[in-house]
Amino acid sequence: MESSTILPLSQLSVSPWPKRAHQPTRSRPWTRRAYQPTRLIRCQKMYVPGFGEASPEAKAAKNLHNFFTYIAVRIVTAQLESYNTEAYEELMEFLSRHSLNDGDKFCANLMRESPRHRSLALRILEVRSAYCKNDFEWDNLKRLAFKMVEESNTRLMRDYVLETSPEEQEK
Amino acid sequence: MESSTILPLSQLSVSPWPKRAHQPTRSRPWTRRAYQPTRLIRCQKMYVPGFGEASPEAKAAKNLHNFFTYIAVRIVTAQLESYNTEAYEELMEFLSRHSLNDGDKFCANLMRESPRHRSLALRILEVRSAYCKNDFEWDNLKRLAFKMVEESNTRLMRDYVLETSPEEQEK
Repeated sequence: MESSTILPLSQLSVSPWPKRAHQPTRSRPWTRRAYQPTRLIRCQKMYVPGFGEASPEAKAAKNLHNFFTYIAVRIVTAQLESYNTEAYEELMEFLSRHSLNDGDKFCANLMRESPRHRSLALRILEVRSAYCKNDFEWDNLKRLAFKMVEESNTRLMRDYVLETSPEEQEK
Repeated sequence: MESSTILPLSQLSVSPWPKRAHQPTRSRPWTRRAYQPTRLIRCQKMYVPGFGEASPEAKAAKNLHNFFTYIAVRIVTAQLESYNTEAYEELMEFLSRHSLNDGDKFCANLMRESPRHRSLALRILEVRSAYCKNDFEWDNLKRLAFKMVEESNTRLMRDYVLETSPEEQEK
């Protein structure tokens, strides 16, 4: 239907590498079973450098938080379009001037635009909370991510093997 | 420790609005309880426009997939740094030339760089699968996202109230 829609989460901007993210003094196992000097070490997870006091889960949650704001804005806009054209156009106009990259900043700015914008902002806050807690399918997210990593790994290896197989090279 | 690290998921690039993402002909409820004409309608979720045949969960999973690749690259690089300086430098050099935005594309390119790079790519594939399935704390992600939406909503409203309260304006 709208499969060509520009989606926020497919546009990651990953910095090639942060500076000084590595600590040359430590040796780290690269699988959970590779290095277990004593049974006293309970944490068998792989060491993920560079997240400081935060965690990968916190970073992913922050990202999802912005995604939920984006979705809430889409939900509210779609609703307004059908029964409140004036509010719809105000919100669209505001969207053309403000980035949704930072959902909280967007909502904070929207609240301060005008009393009418403020009520829209409150509605977006309510919708993103309801969406996160009730509508978003967390189990499905996990299932899809598992499936994606398996399928991607298989596809990458298969493509490489096909590309470099003798039959292919003889053509 | 490395709290100033540049993180991939905090750099969302959200397009202000996709074109033709709305369908003016339909009326949509904006909370799950607001509109239940008959008991036959089983889906009580809010309508999220603009995802076409995909779903928000699939988009979020795709995003996490790239995040897991980023994390796998970090894990492998940190391990190499301590015991295989040559491979570490090769990977870092490759990273300086290739974007990690699309994890699968990065791995596909890495596999085709040289036989040594290929073994690094296979290792990254293995680590991202293990990380996704064993190490990443899915329940924690959900808990943190719930907490984040509550705290952010409260903070945004509190800040606004404080900013516009009479005492504040009298100062």
